[in-house]
Amino acid sequence: MFSVTVRDHMMIAHSLRGEVFGPAQALHGATFVVDATFRRSVLDADNIVVDIGRAAEELHAVVGELSYRNLDEEAAFAGTNTTTEALAQVVADRLAERVRTGALGDGALGLEGIAVTLHESHIAWASYERAL
Amino acid sequence: MFSVTVRDHMMIAHSLRGEVFGPAQALHGATFVVDATFRRSVLDADNIVVDIGRAAEELHAVVGELSYRNLDEEAAFAGTNTTTEALAQVVADRLAERVRTGALGDGALGLEGIAVTLHESHIAWASYERAL
Amino acid sequence: MFSVTVRDHMMIAHSLRGEVFGPAQALHGATFVVDATFRRSVLDADNIVVDIGRAAEELHAVVGELSYRNLDEEAAFAGTNTTTEALAQVVADRLAERVRTGALGDGALGLEGIAVTLHESHIAWASYERAL
Amino acid sequence: MFSVTVRDHMMIAHSLRGEVFGPAQALHGATFVVDATFRRSVLDADNIVVDIGRAAEELHAVVGELSYRNLDEEAAFAGTNTTTEALAQVVADRLAERVRTGALGDGALGLEGIAVTLHESHIAWASYERAL
Amino acid sequence: MFSVTVRDHMMIAHSLRGEVFGPAQALHGATFVVDATFRRSVLDADNIVVDIGRAAEELHAVVGELSYRNLDEEAAFAGTNTTTEALAQVVADRLAERVRTGALGDGALGLEGIAVTLHESHIAWASYERAL
Amino acid sequence: MFSVTVRDHMMIAHSLRGEVFGPAQALHGATFVVDATFRRSVLDADNIVVDIGRAAEELHAVVGELSYRNLDEEAAFAGTNTTTEALAQVVADRLAERVRTGALGDGALGLEGIAVTLHESHIAWASYERAL
Repeated sequence: MFSVTVRDHMMIAHSLRGEVFGPAQALHGATFVVDATFRRSVLDADNIVVDIGRAAEELHAVVGELSYRNLDEEAAFAGTNTTTEALAQVVADRLAERVRTGALGDGALGLEGIAVTLHESHIAWASYERAL
Repeated sequence: MFSVTVRDHMMIAHSLRGEVFGPAQALHGATFVVDATFRRSVLDADNIVVDIGRAAEELHAVVGELSYRNLDEEAAFAGTNTTTEALAQVVADRLAERVRTGALGDGALGLEGIAVTLHESHIAWASYERAL
Repeated sequence: MFSVTVRDHMMIAHSLRGEVFGPAQALHGATFVVDATFRRSVLDADNIVVDIGRAAEELHAVVGELSYRNLDEEAAFAGTNTTTEALAQVVADRLAERVRTGALGDGALGLEGIAVTLHESHIAWASYERAL
Repeated sequence: MFSVTVRDHMMIAHSLRGEVFGPAQALHGATFVVDATFRRSVLDADNIVVDIGRAAEELHAVVGELSYRNLDEEAAFAGTNTTTEALAQVVADRLAERVRTGALGDGALGLEGIAVTLHESHIAWASYERAL
Repeated sequence: MFSVTVRDHMMIAHSLRGEVFGPAQALHGATFVVDATFRRSVLDADNIVVDIGRAAEELHAVVGELSYRNLDEEAAFAGTNTTTEALAQVVADRLAERVRTGALGDGALGLEGIAVTLHESHIAWASYERAL
Repeated sequence: MFSVTVRDHMMIAHSLRGEVFGPAQALHGATFVVDATFRRSVLDADNIVVDIGRAAEELHAVVGELSYRNLDEEAAFAGTNTTTEALAQVVADRLAERVRTGALGDGALGLEGIAVTLHESHIAWASYERAL
């Protein structure tokens, strides 16, 4: 199995609902350093997993839809706890949709899986991985 | 599949038995930067893998049982080569026991796996992963 | 010259005023990984720059006064652009005050300088250094 | 499952053929920070995955066959696009061959898998993993 | 003293002349992860060292002039050993020129110094710092 | 001012004397990731700060004199608290002696300063810098 990973980041404000979150129930924020991993069993005709330039552009577009925002006021997240885990899934699902619609090129249609890791600090991170 | 990882560290002395260990047969020591990863397929009602505060506390407790010690004199390791690999399993198994007894909260009973990585330097690390 | 550095982090929400900040004029947030460096020319009687345990505790207290907050609503920052640079100075000055009042122990009175670096992402950070 | 990883690096020149590579079609170069991971289900009699000294030596030998070279002029890569993905496989396959022929010791014959990651920058890396 | 640092990277081919360089006398390559630090004693009216967006853009332009090239064939480096140290100076001097001509904005005219670090691997890096 | 840094590591056991060290008064250990920085104002005739190969070899020799040992039993440290700060000075002073006696080559006689950083974990490190 092969994989390629590209890294970007986003800076957001949000609050979390539920006693389990303690002080993070207050409005605060985070930088998420975002690693997006694309997987496939066999390389394409160019000997690559995915066009890394396009992969980086599409990841940048996806994190750009979230960055510099207060997620508490985004309609897309109404009623949703925007935990690191949940945001990892959002980024992965949005990348998967871009793969499906051809934004990463025809070669990317051979991708088999995506994993997204969001690093919220030097001591904590969360991941979500899914098939394509 | 979702995962959450928390990082801590421990500083121990020990020696290793066997020619394969070369100079590490002498009493020396290590800082292990410890990453504990908790996995599950579906998030809980709070949209999380595990209460990250409790996960960090329990990891800190587990590494605290080992840190600032000479492992050669710990009864728990009598007759055991305390390699990085073996210590990764010790940390993972002790965390798994804490999950099982509820120390990480009821939500953590839905966890499906644990992986522990011990970084012994900037150029070497070892991992152990297991089901829950 | 000797130095000791300890690392902690804080997660805050804020907005920045001024066209130069572009999209960061909107309410957003950041994780700041915070490195506090203590300097002195000569070690104390224990052969240390500072009691690293106390240094870590005081840094944790200082970042705890800022973390999990919306800095736009903190009285201490009314009328202030809470840029990474400015927050590095805030952390350094608050640590300096704690050194001066003895919170880091009598040995710390021999400290000569403090530097604080706030990492806002994997590709950007800011520092402030001052004498004691 | 246990694993041990060792890190080394190599510095090479090469060019890539195909429009997808854009400016990387010109002769340029890369430092690849190389992580080689060895996996097995059960530790050997010394409580290790592999003799980490030998693993580091063999990895160093494998990257030494590639480093400080222009891969465009290496017979082994004639007609091959030496992408990061492809080079990860080269390193993994050459390590696998060394495992098979006993260069990592008899204990290493119990290894079940190898994964190799090549970091080409702080924002991009590729991996290949295979069974043994 | 305040500073702000931004990180980018470049991938180049080159060879080095002189016995001291051993195998690096052959054509090979490197990824340089480039950190550019801007320093000043007093923040500007926006409470910043420099417009970090412009600083990142100008650094990207400077490394873009070098990246994906064989430096042995660049007229600018004819007769020059393009060591990591020398390239750090090139990047710093080119950034300094851009500061002087206003590319980083009028606020940047208050900058007092620049430092550039080029990381050539996980175990080696070089820096050059100069006044403005 | 130019600088070049090389990284290595050492793994030692020791104990520290004095109440300030709390649990670190017990025999324990550490991995120190060691960064040695060499500084000079003007590059030599090869356009370098120092022969990086020799610098790495000499650093490796210096840390090799300390690694895989119990520092409590080393005659060189009798009566000395082997704190991270103190060990940074030991490494710097031993490197300085090697520079002075020509082990890093004649070009290294133009070096003006050395700084050594010992990382004891992901959240703590100490440095010592001196003139040559």
